[in-house]
Amino acid sequence: MSKANCLVAQSGGPTAVINSSLYGVIMEASNSSKIDKVYGGINGIEGILKKKIIDIFEIPYDKINHMKFTPSAALGSCRYRLKDYKENDEEYKKLFDIFSEYNIKYFFYIGGNDSMETVYKIHSYAQEVGLEINVIGIPKTIDNDLLLTDHSPGFGSAAKFIATVTLELALDGEAYETKTINVMEVMGRNAGWLAASSALVKDKLPDLRHLIYLPEVPFNEEKFLEEVNQAYKEYGNVFITVSEGIKDESGNYIETGAGSYKQDSFGHRQLGGVGDYLEYLIKQKIYKRVRMTRLGFTQRSALHFASQVDFEEAEKVGRKAVQFALNGESGKMVAIIRDNDDPYVVHFETVDAEKVCNEEKLIPTSWISEDGTYVKDEFFKYARPLIQGEVKIPIDGLPNYISLKHQYNLW
Amino acid sequence: MSKANCLVAQSGGPTAVINSSLYGVIMEASNSSKIDKVYGGINGIEGILKKKIIDIFEIPYDKINHMKFTPSAALGSCRYRLKDYKENDEEYKKLFDIFSEYNIKYFFYIGGNDSMETVYKIHSYAQEVGLEINVIGIPKTIDNDLLLTDHSPGFGSAAKFIATVTLELALDGEAYETKTINVMEVMGRNAGWLAASSALVKDKLPDLRHLIYLPEVPFNEEKFLEEVNQAYKEYGNVFITVSEGIKDESGNYIETGAGSYKQDSFGHRQLGGVGDYLEYLIKQKIYKRVRMTRLGFTQRSALHFASQVDFEEAEKVGRKAVQFALNGESGKMVAIIRDNDDPYVVHFETVDAEKVCNEEKLIPTSWISEDGTYVKDEFFKYARPLIQGEVKIPIDGLPNYISLKHQYNLW
Repeated sequence: MSKANCLVAQSGGPTAVINSSLYGVIMEASNSSKIDKVYGGINGIEGILKKKIIDIFEIPYDKINHMKFTPSAALGSCRYRLKDYKENDEEYKKLFDIFSEYNIKYFFYIGGNDSMETVYKIHSYAQEVGLEINVIGIPKTIDNDLLLTDHSPGFGSAAKFIATVTLELALDGEAYETKTINVMEVMGRNAGWLAASSALVKDKLPDLRHLIYLPEVPFNEEKFLEEVNQAYKEYGNVFITVSEGIKDESGNYIETGAGSYKQDSFGHRQLGGVGDYLEYLIKQKIYKRVRMTRLGFTQRSALHFASQVDFEEAEKVGRKAVQFALNGESGKMVAIIRDNDDPYVVHFETVDAEKVCNEEKLIPTSWISEDGTYVKDEFFKYARPLIQGEVKIPIDGLPNYISLKHQYNLW
Repeated sequence: MSKANCLVAQSGGPTAVINSSLYGVIMEASNSSKIDKVYGGINGIEGILKKKIIDIFEIPYDKINHMKFTPSAALGSCRYRLKDYKENDEEYKKLFDIFSEYNIKYFFYIGGNDSMETVYKIHSYAQEVGLEINVIGIPKTIDNDLLLTDHSPGFGSAAKFIATVTLELALDGEAYETKTINVMEVMGRNAGWLAASSALVKDKLPDLRHLIYLPEVPFNEEKFLEEVNQAYKEYGNVFITVSEGIKDESGNYIETGAGSYKQDSFGHRQLGGVGDYLEYLIKQKIYKRVRMTRLGFTQRSALHFASQVDFEEAEKVGRKAVQFALNGESGKMVAIIRDNDDPYVVHFETVDAEKVCNEEKLIPTSWISEDGTYVKDEFFKYARPLIQGEVKIPIDGLPNYISLKHQYNLW
């Protein structure tokens, strides 16, 4: 069998460990006798369609190794959905012309839900028209909303950072005799995994009064104010974690103006997000000393305090993707299957990308407390192993991250 | 000479390394043949006036050592200003009754501007009425606005965290072909040291287009929009750091509604802070893809990635305070005097607390670029040595911080 080439690209929102998966693909592919060249697609499928493709080994190995100790997508990312090929196959023809030109027989796509749809579509098209390609999706999302995998690389590091910041903010909030209500806004449009991860602080600060507002639980302003008021009266210091994606009973995002948020603004869009709004509500109705923190994109890029378990798994799913592709699999996503919580043991399988891409994995209702403001033991057992260990990045005052984009003018 | 006791307390906003200063006082005092007991005042001078005083060595040594690897004030803090004793000396009489009851001859107060005023007032009162006490202030503030000291412990760690997050957010913002404008809101009401510290990212990402809005430079909305527009057109990706304390030409905080911020809200207080407002302005006038991050109190509590230089200096100023007090000094603050930038060398002196407490140290105008949106080489030379090294905290998934408040029900 003659050698073929492989192509790897990254898509969607980056994570702290997304380049560890890229590194895993590159290393495993370069070890295989079946694979000749390893190509990198710049800015995901969007860039590949513009033939923005580089030969990875034109980059010296020390930089490839260094790249994994750098957050954000080293090859660049995109948010680009391929059309349905049954309606329009133009892009697919173009894509396979490019694959043919580069003799690409293996394609690895590191991403979330949309990326798994891309994996499924390219695989299906190839099957339909009889083209030879092995397409494997590599899971990546801090949101942890991919189905059929125990969890997604990127989540553990985001969870570790969020819980650490929760701990530090909670301690800071307790310094005074005067009580403090902390409001921390975290990411998560539909799935509350990130917001829930702040609960892990319980292992270090068991008597913190902590309320967590998840997108899985419809948000009711009156109930919220009652809960905060009661917690404040009973404990004084209260920590509130809120997911950016909480919605009212009708499914409207609070952020864009549901409930009294809408009425108060007299038709004018209020500035700020849901965290600002909860801060405003509490200040108006309960207590003045409220602090709001919006972690923003720090959550997905904080490699300076990332999980070593997550970092290693990210590399492993990359390596496994190459092994599965070489075994002839296609249209699949690498999934992490958990065998045991403590000691933590996992293995890797493939699942149909088609089954992953159409739905988001939410926190099971049975893992959420009855009143909807906290998570149960199941969540702790699930999340604890994922935040263990710290990635040892090179540091010289600041982290010594390397930007391939800047060094090679990639895009 | 018979032995006397000492008292140490913490005041104002905590920092990541404030407990390192506390540790320094405790260790140095416990080594002295002149000092018998080391007392800790709970919640600063406010708690001391309520006789909330503990014998530090009732806490086992391993916990005292562990405490320094914990952010937030271990003994609690306060924001309490003593009255002028010439108008009302009631509090002072009470305070010295308590000092007398506990045989306290040395008082160490870890804090910022207001705390140095307290040091000065207690010292002056004692002098006036002929009471024996040595009062020494120990500098602490992430804002770095204390006069007569090269810098203040707490600043280096906050600067390191802010610059690290700037680097991570900037890399994340460059992942797409689509450009991103990042807006990061940091602390600093009047002094821009924290906002300026995000410039340190230049050492790692030299071609980042970075605009920094400092409280030292009057904010003009039109000029701001021109600057951002030009940077966006020329570079695409732009990083904006804004101090929460920026003010318009008349000295009104933008945060509370200066300029068009006020007009747009139709008399209703807008939600959010200055970062939200700049995000809104840019989205309205220049470009839609803007991301706002509000670091909030994470800046002063991020011991998970704190500066070892800062950590060690914080302990040293604590130790030096004890030495200076034992040498008979009073009404003074320990100051860090820089002898050399590279290699970085400092020594410690005392300065009059009175001269420190009446003014805030701002960034020198000559260190700010002509257009007011960046800092010059002088700032880099100044700040670089302060962020070196990382504090090795104990970690078990999350940082193993210890809360004396919780363990001993201190307040």
